[in-house]
Amino acid sequence: MKCPHCNKEIVQHRNPTPTVDIIIDINGRIVLIKRKNPPFGWALPGGFVDYGESFEDAALREAKEETGLAVSGLEQFHTYSNPDRDARQHTASTVFTGRACGVPQAGDDAGEAGLFSRDNLPDLAFDHALILADYFSGRYGRIS
Amino acid sequence: MKCPHCNKEIVQHRNPTPTVDIIIDINGRIVLIKRKNPPFGWALPGGFVDYGESFEDAALREAKEETGLAVSGLEQFHTYSNPDRDARQHTASTVFTGRACGVPQAGDDAGEAGLFSRDNLPDLAFDHALILADYFSGRYGRIS
Repeated sequence: MKCPHCNKEIVQHRNPTPTVDIIIDINGRIVLIKRKNPPFGWALPGGFVDYGESFEDAALREAKEETGLAVSGLEQFHTYSNPDRDARQHTASTVFTGRACGVPQAGDDAGEAGLFSRDNLPDLAFDHALILADYFSGRYGRIS
Repeated sequence: MKCPHCNKEIVQHRNPTPTVDIIIDINGRIVLIKRKNPPFGWALPGGFVDYGESFEDAALREAKEETGLAVSGLEQFHTYSNPDRDARQHTASTVFTGRACGVPQAGDDAGEAGLFSRDNLPDLAFDHALILADYFSGRYGRIS
């Protein structure tokens, strides 16, 4: 990166940036949001984790901001860290699962919010099609 | 942070920094390393994830660098992101499990490497006592 004051190059150790995404189940269907910013398309609710915030808190915050839903039964599902999963930069997403009631309301970065079943998924941004394939196949997560 | 050239303050969005740790099982005992740098004490092998590196690759690399071991059967266990888990800065560790054969050899940041059983754990740095309590109790991970 360059200093915005003197414009000289600053060498920093770069790490992947942590994000969270959340698979919210409402009566057997899951909540997706239509993104207002690139990359466009439908996606799981989620976003960047703030410094000083646990990933669990970040998942609940993003769910609330983007869908208006209060999520219960939060559990970690899996962390996706393939460097190519987001073309903009290397992000790593820790994906959570949870349940909610009611109707999702789009907010923040979401242009639209909707409920989808396994057999009726729209085109998905990032690696979210892979994440949902893992979810519906029971690849990760606890066997209850 | 401050620019090292002009010393002016630069506002950056800060995120937690991702790390990996790995629980390596050798014949029912697990590998720990004695840290050469603060915080001192025994710890799981692990470290920072490089930009462009998947967390799985980072876990295998750190295991090799710090213990000399080639790990097989790598699986994700759980991600620990409590902001207080590392007093130096907010790091979030994605913890893996795996198996190895042979004798661990301390390398890199490790002053010593040893094998420990559940009933014979030393004092552990960071939140690694919590991680191992979760591991030995079967709290996370797949039920096989």
